[in-house]
Amino acid sequence: MIRSFAFTTQGRLHSKDIQTFLMPTLLADTNLFLWVDLEKPTAEEAKFILEELFHFHPLSVEDCVQVSSSPKVEEYSPKEDDKFAPYLFMVIHAVDYSRKDGVFATSELNFFLGKNFLVTYHEAPLRSVQATEERCLKSTVHIARAPDRVAHTLLDGIVENYKPALDELALEIGELEEDVVKRPSPKMLNKIIKIKKEVLHLRQIIGPQREVLARFAAGEFKLIRPHLVPYYRDVYDGLFRISETAQNYTDSLTGLLHVYLNMSSNQTGEVIKLLTLITLITTPLTLVGTWYGMNFKNMPELDWKLGYELAMAIVLVSTAVIWWWFKKKKWF
Amino acid sequence: MIRSFAFTTQGRLHSKDIQTFLMPTLLADTNLFLWVDLEKPTAEEAKFILEELFHFHPLSVEDCVQVSSSPKVEEYSPKEDDKFAPYLFMVIHAVDYSRKDGVFATSELNFFLGKNFLVTYHEAPLRSVQATEERCLKSTVHIARAPDRVAHTLLDGIVENYKPALDELALEIGELEEDVVKRPSPKMLNKIIKIKKEVLHLRQIIGPQREVLARFAAGEFKLIRPHLVPYYRDVYDGLFRISETAQNYTDSLTGLLHVYLNMSSNQTGEVIKLLTLITLITTPLTLVGTWYGMNFKNMPELDWKLGYELAMAIVLVSTAVIWWWFKKKKWF
Amino acid sequence: MIRSFAFTTQGRLHSKDIQTFLMPTLLADTNLFLWVDLEKPTAEEAKFILEELFHFHPLSVEDCVQVSSSPKVEEYSPKEDDKFAPYLFMVIHAVDYSRKDGVFATSELNFFLGKNFLVTYHEAPLRSVQATEERCLKSTVHIARAPDRVAHTLLDGIVENYKPALDELALEIGELEEDVVKRPSPKMLNKIIKIKKEVLHLRQIIGPQREVLARFAAGEFKLIRPHLVPYYRDVYDGLFRISETAQNYTDSLTGLLHVYLNMSSNQTGEVIKLLTLITLITTPLTLVGTWYGMNFKNMPELDWKLGYELAMAIVLVSTAVIWWWFKKKKWF
Amino acid sequence: MIRSFAFTTQGRLHSKDIQTFLMPTLLADTNLFLWVDLEKPTAEEAKFILEELFHFHPLSVEDCVQVSSSPKVEEYSPKEDDKFAPYLFMVIHAVDYSRKDGVFATSELNFFLGKNFLVTYHEAPLRSVQATEERCLKSTVHIARAPDRVAHTLLDGIVENYKPALDELALEIGELEEDVVKRPSPKMLNKIIKIKKEVLHLRQIIGPQREVLARFAAGEFKLIRPHLVPYYRDVYDGLFRISETAQNYTDSLTGLLHVYLNMSSNQTGEVIKLLTLITLITTPLTLVGTWYGMNFKNMPELDWKLGYELAMAIVLVSTAVIWWWFKKKKWF
Amino acid sequence: MIRSFAFTTQGRLHSKDIQTFLMPTLLADTNLFLWVDLEKPTAEEAKFILEELFHFHPLSVEDCVQVSSSPKVEEYSPKEDDKFAPYLFMVIHAVDYSRKDGVFATSELNFFLGKNFLVTYHEAPLRSVQATEERCLKSTVHIARAPDRVAHTLLDGIVENYKPALDELALEIGELEEDVVKRPSPKMLNKIIKIKKEVLHLRQIIGPQREVLARFAAGEFKLIRPHLVPYYRDVYDGLFRISETAQNYTDSLTGLLHVYLNMSSNQTGEVIKLLTLITLITTPLTLVGTWYGMNFKNMPELDWKLGYELAMAIVLVSTAVIWWWFKKKKWF
Repeated sequence: MIRSFAFTTQGRLHSKDIQTFLMPTLLADTNLFLWVDLEKPTAEEAKFILEELFHFHPLSVEDCVQVSSSPKVEEYSPKEDDKFAPYLFMVIHAVDYSRKDGVFATSELNFFLGKNFLVTYHEAPLRSVQATEERCLKSTVHIARAPDRVAHTLLDGIVENYKPALDELALEIGELEEDVVKRPSPKMLNKIIKIKKEVLHLRQIIGPQREVLARFAAGEFKLIRPHLVPYYRDVYDGLFRISETAQNYTDSLTGLLHVYLNMSSNQTGEVIKLLTLITLITTPLTLVGTWYGMNFKNMPELDWKLGYELAMAIVLVSTAVIWWWFKKKKWF
Repeated sequence: MIRSFAFTTQGRLHSKDIQTFLMPTLLADTNLFLWVDLEKPTAEEAKFILEELFHFHPLSVEDCVQVSSSPKVEEYSPKEDDKFAPYLFMVIHAVDYSRKDGVFATSELNFFLGKNFLVTYHEAPLRSVQATEERCLKSTVHIARAPDRVAHTLLDGIVENYKPALDELALEIGELEEDVVKRPSPKMLNKIIKIKKEVLHLRQIIGPQREVLARFAAGEFKLIRPHLVPYYRDVYDGLFRISETAQNYTDSLTGLLHVYLNMSSNQTGEVIKLLTLITLITTPLTLVGTWYGMNFKNMPELDWKLGYELAMAIVLVSTAVIWWWFKKKKWF
Repeated sequence: MIRSFAFTTQGRLHSKDIQTFLMPTLLADTNLFLWVDLEKPTAEEAKFILEELFHFHPLSVEDCVQVSSSPKVEEYSPKEDDKFAPYLFMVIHAVDYSRKDGVFATSELNFFLGKNFLVTYHEAPLRSVQATEERCLKSTVHIARAPDRVAHTLLDGIVENYKPALDELALEIGELEEDVVKRPSPKMLNKIIKIKKEVLHLRQIIGPQREVLARFAAGEFKLIRPHLVPYYRDVYDGLFRISETAQNYTDSLTGLLHVYLNMSSNQTGEVIKLLTLITLITTPLTLVGTWYGMNFKNMPELDWKLGYELAMAIVLVSTAVIWWWFKKKKWF
Repeated sequence: MIRSFAFTTQGRLHSKDIQTFLMPTLLADTNLFLWVDLEKPTAEEAKFILEELFHFHPLSVEDCVQVSSSPKVEEYSPKEDDKFAPYLFMVIHAVDYSRKDGVFATSELNFFLGKNFLVTYHEAPLRSVQATEERCLKSTVHIARAPDRVAHTLLDGIVENYKPALDELALEIGELEEDVVKRPSPKMLNKIIKIKKEVLHLRQIIGPQREVLARFAAGEFKLIRPHLVPYYRDVYDGLFRISETAQNYTDSLTGLLHVYLNMSSNQTGEVIKLLTLITLITTPLTLVGTWYGMNFKNMPELDWKLGYELAMAIVLVSTAVIWWWFKKKKWF
Repeated sequence: MIRSFAFTTQGRLHSKDIQTFLMPTLLADTNLFLWVDLEKPTAEEAKFILEELFHFHPLSVEDCVQVSSSPKVEEYSPKEDDKFAPYLFMVIHAVDYSRKDGVFATSELNFFLGKNFLVTYHEAPLRSVQATEERCLKSTVHIARAPDRVAHTLLDGIVENYKPALDELALEIGELEEDVVKRPSPKMLNKIIKIKKEVLHLRQIIGPQREVLARFAAGEFKLIRPHLVPYYRDVYDGLFRISETAQNYTDSLTGLLHVYLNMSSNQTGEVIKLLTLITLITTPLTLVGTWYGMNFKNMPELDWKLGYELAMAIVLVSTAVIWWWFKKKKWF
């Protein structure tokens, strides 16, 4: 699906759903800029827009169309025989709102940002793209005055959308922290390690993103006008905080792992304590019982009048003493 | 609440609680400088001072008003159509004196530092702001001669106030160190990990702060006069020492974790030792008792005159030997 | 074996399997470039091509012929008395498709890349070399227009061939992850550590490779024409993703190690639980049985009419209570 | 206490214990240089020398007088209204020879190094200062020719004095290494962790020191004449070796910790082995004894003539077999 | 012992064992260069050659004569009043072929490399020095044409000699890897940790060496002629590979430590399994035996005709069931 918009430099919508043969004319008009959004386009559509209309460099087109490329930003300036206008090519990964099977899915958003055009390309519908579109159409005066402003709004939206993913992780970690102390089980270990992997994965997604945004924040690109650089720095700061939060989660999970492993070995310790306790407490009866079960002819105690009662008393008293002793030592 | 002061460049108080319509006049007077302190201002107050009076850049205003921004310093120089004077925008986190539920709370202090004005913005009353104000009013000659001097005093106070937080942590760690050796319990592990997280949190707060102050210490900003740079370097050194102390705490806590885990596994070892000991010591009686409890017709020992006494002697002697043997091996 | 090709700068094949005495003539023709591929050449062949024909610097020849040199790239510019043309010498390690005994084998590919020649040297037949050759001969127009293009195709192929090795590792790790949860055994630990070593080995192979390619991606070498640099950057990105995947594997394996060690200590915990359980459950019968096995003359219970039934009832009830108690505590 | 010396640039002692009113005159003489050593001076003495005589910058005076500042070096050049001559301010930590309660004490040595003066300030008497003084007075010709030479001698002495502290640690680690293998006890763990903390502390002391000396070794300061830089580099090398030795100790202690933890868990393993062994070895007797202790009317074995002897033989033989089996398996 | 050689710049031996009074004359001849090798010289010899003949800077002489200095390279250029010619001073550590008591011994080799002289100083006879000498005398034409060439040959030899040390370590690690799986014992842990320490030690030796050689490889020194730099880079590459191999060993040993610790805890697990098994298998007999050992008057089973046989059957059947159950669960 192709959505296209032409805005005047005053931020007003000039036209919408532009027919492709009209685009070159609009591009030539210096009072306008064009935003073409390709959402899961057919191969022909992609080829037409990216190659035949804008003549983008084949490498950036390849990176754009191909699924699993890493976040990057590259500046393309035309050589003598190139037909494209100078542009920035950028790949950014948006995180999907809800995880399936505990795995974050990411979708790529590819930007081609020129002086008077912005081409965005994505396979899945993206929350951030949709929201930006709506904002551009509603309050056109403020946002849609230049491609670098629209790009900023898109990036801001993408970074914002990382937060629900973090919140979900925070929730799961919180639950685990409670469960581990209550009843540690090997399943919990699996979960801790799985979430840790998930957080590491998230940090790995964010890492190259940060590098890309850092270059924007440093004002490295001429196509981003200087007075917009602080806005990009703001987006960078947002991502930095997210990455710091993720770092916190890693620390929490490492702590949790320690707690779990200790709870688990502690449980075994408690079982051994129980075994030892039962052995100790039954010792007096066992010893007395075994002893007076002997069949010696000449065992005077057996004939004593109160022999049995005495044996019983010995057993009861020593069991009570052992009981009291370990009670005092806080074994149970 | 808005507090405002105008000082002469000789450090004397010119006026206090200035009415807002007078501020522009005072700002225009090159012999004066203005300190406006916004403590939990209403949205209107904030808007009036930051936007309408000083015309600060919208991004810095947003960062200022918004709660959870990270420590930063940014230099704003006016472009042709900007109405503000060049200024430094800085966010610093002060740590609150007492922790609630074992968690350090931090409050932000936002600075707008210009050639002849200082605007501070904070949501909660801050010890450092109050102290600086008092010092400025008391001994005006020394401190309140320029905005960069007042800013230094504020920063110095904020860094000083980290120390009580560290001392409290030191106390808790010291207590834990004693407790762990005496009676390790899983609750202690939780506490160790919680404090470790707290220290890591503190280091995470300090980290970006240090970066901000390092830029001051390097004399990067023109708005800080060169002869004040050593003072800022001093504040930086203070923060450096605090961060080093926090690092020491982390090391102590890692050591403590090792001690705890070993004490805990040692405890289990001791319980197993006890189980083994009781088993070994009761073995002679159990064996003799079981053996002579057999009902064979023809067991000569049973009919011996001193059979019972002999059995008793065997049991006593071998039990004593076992006892002595493990006593010698220092099992108990 | 020596394979040699001369291509025109239009990418057309000029001649093949060129006799060595003709090579100097072809090298002198500026409309041609030469690709000489040495596959396991004899010492004489190598000496003739590398030393007598191209007069390469003795150090690069030594590095080329010698087996275990590390990946590198070096620029050689002729000094006054040197007879060679400026060239890049590069050593790249290709990974072999299938591992023998769980160990990745790598083969070296040595490049001598000049303005109008490419000499490749390898001991074993290489998938990437063969594929490049075929592509050059088939669709000559596109690929074989210059030595730096051919070199790019070769490098791209080598990086591509890392992927099957990674996939095989992923498979093994997946299998281990399932097995460890089902039935941990010390053999599994050995396997985890062996694969971890393998992944570390792979990362160690990739590491210097990345450094070499990064220099190409940065456009450091004059012999690579600027408009080809993005292609080399693309190869670099591919290698970067591979190295990131390898990092993920390391993390997975560390997690797996934790799971294994816990499963293993958990197993022991379960055995101890069983021991404690059997001891506890048999305690009532053992105690009652031992007690009434005593031979005291005067034991009234023995003479009670329902004494035996009572004993039996006590044993059954208390065993059932213990059973129920531990059932409730989810011990089994 | 104030000690003061004036040396000629030929290294000869000009005067000693100079009265303070004479100092300005001597400072003005370009053929002389002054060394003033303040050892635990009174506040007045410090104020007089540092502030009134030399007019040092207030920040460096504060750093000097204050106790817990970190090692640093700072260059002070006079501004228009400053009265001091350019000087280097340096704080170095000397380690005390003998540890009290296993904790290294450090004393600060503060230097003010000018073109023709050296002011040293320390709270405790320092071995290095005393030795340098003696060398200056004895063989004046060689050492005391310029302040930068005297400063070098002082620094060299301080670095030398780290070595006995290291030797003491080496001794303690050596003792621990022997003890841990012989008889591991939880007290040992505490000691290992304590010494490790101590070594980390030492490295933390050395760290900033190295940075300070590295700046000297790099010849960064104009007040150190170029031909003395190699001597400072030598001091830096000495400190580098010390810090490397400390790193070795950390590694040794980590290894020791592993050995201790293993010895400790091994001990528990041995106890469990003993328990299992005693259970196994007593099993035959217990089983036979329990079995023939039954009171069935009709148990033919009980009436056999050699029944008892047979039972005895069974018990002896099977016990011997078990004994032999575990002996063979090297259990004891 | 002093060995001295004079070579012509064509690499021919001019004279050998030169008398010291002749050396200045030879040094003055620009067609010659001098190699003086001091092997364990007397203090007088060292003093004469280093100080009186070559007038080397006292610091480099001190570093040379003193035993435990760290690897370094320093450039000395004469100041106005210095009498020495510009030279490079270098300390390199050679590793001794065979370890004594499992500890690598290193010997220092000190170089003074000038435009037309090379002075080497070492306390012990060095394999590399001897080999270089032989090569210089045999095939003089190739090697001994300039001091920087001879120095390269010496360095190359030293780096080569690290390899046997590595091979020996590899052998020991291989043996350990086999032993640990077969029969883990605490002695093995000691050995693992000792070898790990040894490898760390080796890496610590190599570390500063690499830095020294990196400076040669970067062509930093004017006394090394540019066309020799690639040869020095080659030596650097060799050392780099050695250091990488040492890194691999560290990883192997960490893996081994994990295996050992697991094998050891696994052994305890097996012992506990055995204890539990014997307890479970003897339970039926013990329970039945204890039960029918009771002396109740009224126990009908005792009087049953086949009571004893029934008891026997119960015991046998339940024991067999338990046996089969645990056999099935693969406990033994």
